[in-house]
Amino acid sequence: MVKLSKAHTKFIKSLQLKKYRQLEQTFLVEGEKSVLEVIDSDFEITEIIATSKFRSLHGHLLESLSVLESEDLSAIGTLKSNDAAIALVRMKPEQPFAVTSGLTLLSDGINDPGNFGTILRVADWYGINRICASPDTCELYNPKVISSSKGSFTRVEVSYAELDTVIATAGLPVYAADMSGRNVHSFKFPEDCLLVMGNESHGISASLEALITERLTIPSFGGAESLNVGVATAIMLDNYRRLHH
Amino acid sequence: MVKLSKAHTKFIKSLQLKKYRQLEQTFLVEGEKSVLEVIDSDFEITEIIATSKFRSLHGHLLESLSVLESEDLSAIGTLKSNDAAIALVRMKPEQPFAVTSGLTLLSDGINDPGNFGTILRVADWYGINRICASPDTCELYNPKVISSSKGSFTRVEVSYAELDTVIATAGLPVYAADMSGRNVHSFKFPEDCLLVMGNESHGISASLEALITERLTIPSFGGAESLNVGVATAIMLDNYRRLHH
Repeated sequence: MVKLSKAHTKFIKSLQLKKYRQLEQTFLVEGEKSVLEVIDSDFEITEIIATSKFRSLHGHLLESLSVLESEDLSAIGTLKSNDAAIALVRMKPEQPFAVTSGLTLLSDGINDPGNFGTILRVADWYGINRICASPDTCELYNPKVISSSKGSFTRVEVSYAELDTVIATAGLPVYAADMSGRNVHSFKFPEDCLLVMGNESHGISASLEALITERLTIPSFGGAESLNVGVATAIMLDNYRRLHH
Repeated sequence: MVKLSKAHTKFIKSLQLKKYRQLEQTFLVEGEKSVLEVIDSDFEITEIIATSKFRSLHGHLLESLSVLESEDLSAIGTLKSNDAAIALVRMKPEQPFAVTSGLTLLSDGINDPGNFGTILRVADWYGINRICASPDTCELYNPKVISSSKGSFTRVEVSYAELDTVIATAGLPVYAADMSGRNVHSFKFPEDCLLVMGNESHGISASLEALITERLTIPSFGGAESLNVGVATAIMLDNYRRLHH
């Protein structure tokens, strides 16, 4: 067991804040599954702090790590409890967004980190590897985004850009999930298209409305007023993938 | 503004614990949307504590309420912040489970309250009004279940029962969401059936395995290892509802 210096503890905790993540170009990856996924990815890990249990299970994967008690590990991270590991990971330079073939997912102001992380996870499940996010979408490296993506942040690339410009450049049909639109069950997605998922409260931005080719609706059969945006994204992608695998 | 007595504050806070909810047969409903849904339902409300903002917006719906500052309201509830209301609501007597026509959802040990609440919400969206939950499913009246159901707990009835008995009695085909099974995209659900959603970590119980007619899989196209069980439930129900509306 080591004891982290006060200064180093303070440094690690500072990465919970966007300002310091940006300054250091470093973010936190927490918990067993996420840390294993980042070890297995091409992200550069600058430091791993782990419990002795994590070391005995996975130490062979690592050149070095610091060992802490589970309580001390939990105390420096954001998870309620963490009996595995925290990795400090270098941000990758953001790639300028380029539309590829297939469906491209656009996040229009999704600002709950748990929802955005879920969207990364479901995009990864359905083999959508790039997301373009409006500047008011929450930050990719927010610890809650990283943890709720369950490792999918290592496989799904996120670029931030103004969506109206992206749509204009892409020259593809643009669909948007909406409460009143065409029933997605009977809609034939073209293979190459853009799919916009809007903000949790306000839906699609006014500035994008004129650019939408068609609004699509997940049909409702009961009393619930809405679906969570992560759930809705999964259903839209499931409907797309039944047509294009 | 009133000041709640210490004893009354303690009573309300005690309802965060299952033991006291059971004893008092009373549970907490928190936040604007959920409280409005419960007012609009046939649940019996014993007390409402609200901010003056909530009273000025919705006071006409209520015979009486106590008014507190938002900080004091948040302090007695479980939400991070609550600037609307908390209702104390009587539990309804649990109905013995009876299979009805259509799809019946079975929860096999789902134990994360956020997930179970999401399942209520998506079931409600897709017009599934009854859920049968195994005894080791989390408690319906857990504040996190109630809040993440977004009011759908008022429309979806939950009965707790041993699922093997339920399955034996129903005499219907039983499908289970599983990582390795038949592709749900090409599966023709019969209209009347049971759908089992298993525990987040362990999947379907060993005791149910022999009772499953067919395992169904949501096809994966990327690297994510799994989908959240709430998301998976929504996708299964979406696939069912495209056949039977």
